[in-house]
Amino acid sequence: MADSGARRSFWAWGMEADEPTVQQRQEMAAKLSQRYGVAVEPVPVPTAAGLALRQPRIKPPASLADVCSSDTHDRAVHSYGRSFRDRIRAFNLQFPNPPDVVAHPRDEKDVEAILDWCSSSGYAAIPYGGGSSTVGGIEPGEDSSGVVTIDLGNLNRVLEIDDVSRAARIQAGVYGPALEEQLRPHGFTLRHFPQSFEYSTLGGWIATRSGGHYATNHTHIDDFVESVRMITPVGVWESRRLPGSGAGPNPDRLVMGSEGVLGIITEAWMRIQARPQFRASAGVVFPTFQSGAEAVRQIVQAKLWPANCRLLDPGESASAAGMDGNHALLVIGFESAELPQGDLMRQAIAIASDAGGSVDGDGIRISGEPGGSTGREGAVGAWRSAFLGAPYQRNLTTGLGTVEDTLETAVTWDRWPQLDASVRGALQDALDRICGGGVVTCRFTHVYPDGPAPYFTFAGMGRRGAEIEMYDAIKKEASDAVMAAGGTITHHHAVGRLHKPWYQLERPDPFAEALRAAKRAVDPNGVLNPGVLFDP
Amino acid sequence: MADSGARRSFWAWGMEADEPTVQQRQEMAAKLSQRYGVAVEPVPVPTAAGLALRQPRIKPPASLADVCSSDTHDRAVHSYGRSFRDRIRAFNLQFPNPPDVVAHPRDEKDVEAILDWCSSSGYAAIPYGGGSSTVGGIEPGEDSSGVVTIDLGNLNRVLEIDDVSRAARIQAGVYGPALEEQLRPHGFTLRHFPQSFEYSTLGGWIATRSGGHYATNHTHIDDFVESVRMITPVGVWESRRLPGSGAGPNPDRLVMGSEGVLGIITEAWMRIQARPQFRASAGVVFPTFQSGAEAVRQIVQAKLWPANCRLLDPGESASAAGMDGNHALLVIGFESAELPQGDLMRQAIAIASDAGGSVDGDGIRISGEPGGSTGREGAVGAWRSAFLGAPYQRNLTTGLGTVEDTLETAVTWDRWPQLDASVRGALQDALDRICGGGVVTCRFTHVYPDGPAPYFTFAGMGRRGAEIEMYDAIKKEASDAVMAAGGTITHHHAVGRLHKPWYQLERPDPFAEALRAAKRAVDPNGVLNPGVLFDP
Repeated sequence: MADSGARRSFWAWGMEADEPTVQQRQEMAAKLSQRYGVAVEPVPVPTAAGLALRQPRIKPPASLADVCSSDTHDRAVHSYGRSFRDRIRAFNLQFPNPPDVVAHPRDEKDVEAILDWCSSSGYAAIPYGGGSSTVGGIEPGEDSSGVVTIDLGNLNRVLEIDDVSRAARIQAGVYGPALEEQLRPHGFTLRHFPQSFEYSTLGGWIATRSGGHYATNHTHIDDFVESVRMITPVGVWESRRLPGSGAGPNPDRLVMGSEGVLGIITEAWMRIQARPQFRASAGVVFPTFQSGAEAVRQIVQAKLWPANCRLLDPGESASAAGMDGNHALLVIGFESAELPQGDLMRQAIAIASDAGGSVDGDGIRISGEPGGSTGREGAVGAWRSAFLGAPYQRNLTTGLGTVEDTLETAVTWDRWPQLDASVRGALQDALDRICGGGVVTCRFTHVYPDGPAPYFTFAGMGRRGAEIEMYDAIKKEASDAVMAAGGTITHHHAVGRLHKPWYQLERPDPFAEALRAAKRAVDPNGVLNPGVLFDP
Repeated sequence: MADSGARRSFWAWGMEADEPTVQQRQEMAAKLSQRYGVAVEPVPVPTAAGLALRQPRIKPPASLADVCSSDTHDRAVHSYGRSFRDRIRAFNLQFPNPPDVVAHPRDEKDVEAILDWCSSSGYAAIPYGGGSSTVGGIEPGEDSSGVVTIDLGNLNRVLEIDDVSRAARIQAGVYGPALEEQLRPHGFTLRHFPQSFEYSTLGGWIATRSGGHYATNHTHIDDFVESVRMITPVGVWESRRLPGSGAGPNPDRLVMGSEGVLGIITEAWMRIQARPQFRASAGVVFPTFQSGAEAVRQIVQAKLWPANCRLLDPGESASAAGMDGNHALLVIGFESAELPQGDLMRQAIAIASDAGGSVDGDGIRISGEPGGSTGREGAVGAWRSAFLGAPYQRNLTTGLGTVEDTLETAVTWDRWPQLDASVRGALQDALDRICGGGVVTCRFTHVYPDGPAPYFTFAGMGRRGAEIEMYDAIKKEASDAVMAAGGTITHHHAVGRLHKPWYQLERPDPFAEALRAAKRAVDPNGVLNPGVLFDP
């Protein structure tokens, strides 16, 4: 992220060094060719030399010149997140609406000065964390006269650790790995692992209500926020550090999920944890996804709170864990810094077995007990690697004509079977009609006592040049199906621009009015991330 | 609550039948006389015959006549909550500002019609649940031309139970016991037990972010709300039933803690639980409050999540559990509908022992294991009875000249020792100076990984007729000390009118502006509970 000289790729996940080689692209093209039965040309990836951006329309004041950039590559990198639509457009060197200026504040004073400049000039101010948005959350709108993207990357330090309360004051621009590196010597971890972990930031997680991996019981970043500090055009919005309170509506909860429209988060006191010493993991195989779902429901309703409780449908268990494609796989993990986890694991396994599951060949691994301890081998381990590597996989297929994405929701258990059927049906139907076929799979990334958070993956072969319109049509049908089946339009990917039409259906109308009014109160000139969450 | 003919007491906790007898008052007067070394006259309790209220200033439209009352007793009952200030004023028959009309809507349509009437006429509309507010949360302000208190007591049914997702749709006006009675035949419980349980309602809990007993891990009612339905002057604010979501700021979280200023909550889908079958309880004795606090910190940071984890200081353990006054008592309780809790209890006891605790003479009680199962005997049982009976105790002392109350906060562990010292010091100093002495005790009612929620009790002997000003002076010093020591002005008693000055210090300024703007958006005429949370 900040290696000297190393640059982020303007189109791919990761750094320029993560862009695929010619050979990798050729191999992928051949693979896709075989899979879809069509000729796939291994078109070369774009280079920065091909970037031709509109001239910046605005110029920062002299006092901010040091922290502002109008460099073409910098502006291109900050034009998009990493959604399917973003990757295709960036791959095709389509940057019709880049930010005019990318600001790199060194500290909060800079943030305030930049926001003042934007607010007084009426320029859009877009807070930017790691740029991993998959919903158009950091993309400039078309109707601003000037756009300043504010990259918080220099605010990257853990400022203070309270090891008695287990909390840390952390700057918002820190990326996942750098955050964990700074906590590790103290024996602590935030232990918030979204799939975007490598290229997302604390501030971004808070602004989008990120969901972490290893996070049953406390799932969203929301639960780990002790207090938050946000710069708004009308002043500093900072809550008191408190373990709990009943004093009026929780001010932090209005910041969480505000996606940059209320202010720029600069730091937060976060609840941290001692690093786990005791682990237990197991894979349980089920004859069907629905029997696995029933086991998950019972485990989470028994309040065993396994850190990890992921259920993969037969398609996912085949592609991610090398299984036979006829069985679902439940991955269970317990962990603790203080206490052996074997008994909890045995209780969870007992419930899963009663519900028709059988323990995966790799068995149960419990630290300190015979039979291994890491839980990094076997089906569980295969799944784990796939999880961390998934975003890079898309670098191989981008621009080869595929139409593929993931979408997530959450729904109560009573509605889950119908949602599964209708969303799967809508996706398959749309893929068949639009792409002439394709694959749909599902897993539970998170579970709650009252319902799962299903995560659908779909992929088909489109036509190069038409991928975005094909994608939009498929996404629309899936989103309509999610809403009709009682789900949320997003469990942890946020709203941004992509989900706005469905968010407007989900959000209570008077709340929408309240939120608009709240924004007007703290952002009177309407400069903060206009067009995200609601129309400007 | 709704026994035919039975009426709520207009001054005491509970029903008229709960008002103390002449003999009980005489005994209490003698006891106080002895305790404080002053003569205490057992002044008789007031009777409804003594009520003389201002004539109603407004009259409901004919269409609402059936659900509106201007009965004197009804208006008196709805004039105050049950704070110290409330009880004294009601006892003294001081009702300078009663509601003009008490509305008893039969359904949501009535609620809408009543709110429409208020909004179009500019009359204050005060949502009323069980009337247990201790912070002036349902008290009319002085500057309204007309006041309508809207008692939700008829909206008292569990409408729907989803036993797969473990959730229930419940009307907001249901009292605690009636709610549990309706869930019990289905094997479920909400298991939310604020001390006001008998005389508070679901809607009131949500509006004030109530904190429950038996609620480590998920403490406030907030965590049990799946969706909420609220009537506002601009329409219905209803969220989707969802186990989790990341779609923008959570709309429910703006309702929670809104204390009636944004709308009238009419129903909510609540997460319910199977009734516990397995229980484990223990009392652990510590040489000091601070050593007990250290044990509690370790237990909660180990994420054992005992349902109950209450620490009583030596003063509390003596008065509430009959101990010697030189030791602190930790009450630990585990429970589960599905799983034996013995192992968890043994792990908690091991941590507590390492921290210097020794198991109470009554031992550890674990269902299904030798040695008993109910946990209702011994020190633990004594404390439990005291907890449920405490509000009635005040009926005995009200009007005898005592100045007494409880106040609660929450604070991070690093700041806790200093907060304990300074709040205790401020209370004792104020009692000494103002009352010529008194007693201060403390317990943890709730604990979090990053800090406890301490609950202070104070009592001294004041002068009859001057109790309120004496109380106000003591409360002010304690509140100043809480704020200076980094606590919240309220962990679960809400803000109302009483805590407003300190809430204004705690609340981030831009959030205050956002909240005001949100209120203006949904309550354009400013009729909803004016003067609560912020000045009108």
